[in-house]
Amino acid sequence: MSPVRHQKPMELALGTAQQGHRGANPLVGAILVHGEQVLAVGHHRGAGSPHAERVALSSFAEARARGAHDGVDPAEAVLYTTLEPCRHHGRQPPCTEAILEAGIGTVVYGAPDPTPRAGGGAQVLSAAGLEVIAGVLDEQCRALNHRWLRAQEQGRPFVTVHLAQTLDGRIAAADGSSRWITSAASREHTHTIRERIDAILVGTETALIDDPRLTARTSDGALAARQPLRCVMGLREIPEQALLRDGEPEGHGWRRLATRDPGEALRWLSASEHRGHPVRHVLVEGGARVMAAFFAADLVDEVFVYQAPLILGAGPSSVGDLGITTLRQAPRFVLDSAESGPVRLFGTDVCTHLSPEPYPAGASGTSLTDTPDRSS
Amino acid sequence: MSPVRHQKPMELALGTAQQGHRGANPLVGAILVHGEQVLAVGHHRGAGSPHAERVALSSFAEARARGAHDGVDPAEAVLYTTLEPCRHHGRQPPCTEAILEAGIGTVVYGAPDPTPRAGGGAQVLSAAGLEVIAGVLDEQCRALNHRWLRAQEQGRPFVTVHLAQTLDGRIAAADGSSRWITSAASREHTHTIRERIDAILVGTETALIDDPRLTARTSDGALAARQPLRCVMGLREIPEQALLRDGEPEGHGWRRLATRDPGEALRWLSASEHRGHPVRHVLVEGGARVMAAFFAADLVDEVFVYQAPLILGAGPSSVGDLGITTLRQAPRFVLDSAESGPVRLFGTDVCTHLSPEPYPAGASGTSLTDTPDRSS
Repeated sequence: MSPVRHQKPMELALGTAQQGHRGANPLVGAILVHGEQVLAVGHHRGAGSPHAERVALSSFAEARARGAHDGVDPAEAVLYTTLEPCRHHGRQPPCTEAILEAGIGTVVYGAPDPTPRAGGGAQVLSAAGLEVIAGVLDEQCRALNHRWLRAQEQGRPFVTVHLAQTLDGRIAAADGSSRWITSAASREHTHTIRERIDAILVGTETALIDDPRLTARTSDGALAARQPLRCVMGLREIPEQALLRDGEPEGHGWRRLATRDPGEALRWLSASEHRGHPVRHVLVEGGARVMAAFFAADLVDEVFVYQAPLILGAGPSSVGDLGITTLRQAPRFVLDSAESGPVRLFGTDVCTHLSPEPYPAGASGTSLTDTPDRSS
Repeated sequence: MSPVRHQKPMELALGTAQQGHRGANPLVGAILVHGEQVLAVGHHRGAGSPHAERVALSSFAEARARGAHDGVDPAEAVLYTTLEPCRHHGRQPPCTEAILEAGIGTVVYGAPDPTPRAGGGAQVLSAAGLEVIAGVLDEQCRALNHRWLRAQEQGRPFVTVHLAQTLDGRIAAADGSSRWITSAASREHTHTIRERIDAILVGTETALIDDPRLTARTSDGALAARQPLRCVMGLREIPEQALLRDGEPEGHGWRRLATRDPGEALRWLSASEHRGHPVRHVLVEGGARVMAAFFAADLVDEVFVYQAPLILGAGPSSVGDLGITTLRQAPRFVLDSAESGPVRLFGTDVCTHLSPEPYPAGASGTSLTDTPDRSS
């Protein structure tokens, strides 16, 4: 097959990848093809879930068990995957093993796996005699995860932020009242995200004023099965009776990060474990000063804006002063089609899903210690 | 036919009505039915366009001219319309005439026409021997235009506002730079609205800082065929060289409303003419203080929020202080399905279309001179 023939199936794999959600792991899509026939598709559903290649191969195996695809020789099938198959035992077994076990003849992938532990899968497959074609729609496959790649390069967790605000961008009224600006459906979505992340982070001011629990809860208010590490960033002390402590000693269920520097906070978290796993996905929930610090340092990888249909006209804005004085310095974002599309309605609220605008071609990522200048 | 049998066609008429746009005239939908067959549908496309009943009847007449619906006796057809057909000669001839000319046997309508000049159509039709059934889905038909009805009761123009802002609700950077926060596609949509309104209004501060032209322009920058009356509200003088003057004497193409009271501004406009017609639809474009005054006085009937994908963190917010101190006082809105649905993408921007939350059942509209209290 010519490289052009590979583009269409890879585009399908890219579309499938978008059904996953962003976080600790990259978005990956896989599609198993025989001639013109699509045998199976799969996407990665996030950390702790099977990889896209395994999902597609399992779906193929199940179909065969039901008697479908009887005449297909797996050696003649081609597995397209947007990311090089991994070769390491992490929370999931290596994809290379599954591909070899399934007897697939050809693997076509988009972007190389940049992680030292997981990378090198292509070599393993080639050595086992498979035909391996690399770099099909490489640019699009990299672009799909450009902020995840950046987080990898910087050796830090992936950062998602929430802005839950009025039509005019306020997160509370002048008297501090903020329960509830957003709809129950928006808050429920927030809790599904809290359940899948590793750590949740707010500033000390939010902790003191709102006294949040920072737990992941189901729609009936019960605690979800997975709970994030509850983090407070800032220089003020957290009172004994703060709900986020929940009777646990610091360093267990919750942690205070005594800094105003988001880079430093992320370095601490990178070196932390929670529930026996490294912290690789952080949700920043506010307030305005913490948001501003993350945006100013270009440490935001994904944004959900929950826009509730009311006007306050006063009270704190969702994002504090970034030190930007003129329009061309403003960090810019693009609508993110991953998960369930760029715009969703949650009850009365409009939720917009965004990613930072990719860097211009040729610009390299800065390290955590550099001073980012998005305006240049 | 039993009233229940009328509900389904009236729901169809309601859905059709939503395709129009809000403004000087109410949203109206009409549908012509014979037995189970829908012969024609029509909606009102706004001031200066034919009324919904005429659109549906014309479509029926055209179909007959092409030889369709040959076996249909108009006397057996039923015309459903969400609003009582008008009987007056305004910018459009009376609908009652068109119905009588078409020989329609039965007319079913939802809400009565509240305007003294246009109302009474039902009586005209009854007197002419038609069967007239009133009040089918009356509540929904009134709700569709609840803010238009309120503007009628208050004897003032319908008020649309635009919030063109960043993700964090800013309309300019700290140095005042604001060109352009929103995308070209958003600005083009604004210009299509500017073309159909009667007057556009900004505050003196916006006029002085941004020096806008306030004209309706086509996508290539040329002046649109219809131009709104350009209004500036506030106590400061407008300099000779201001672009919005455009060399015209005050009171012709532009007008200064020397008040900070939006009710007073609207009373002036209600008594004004532009292009030989009364001013019945005003677009308020900012800035923050004018927006706040209109929201605080509950004089906003429709909102478009253009949310551009960037963060400023500083600079003026889209809505200034309303005098609200706590969350429960905040004016609330609902997503508006009229025109092209509640959410649209304009280039990189998300545009949300909203209407004020309807008043609770039993609450009556306040007059322009009352002090509105949305929080009670």
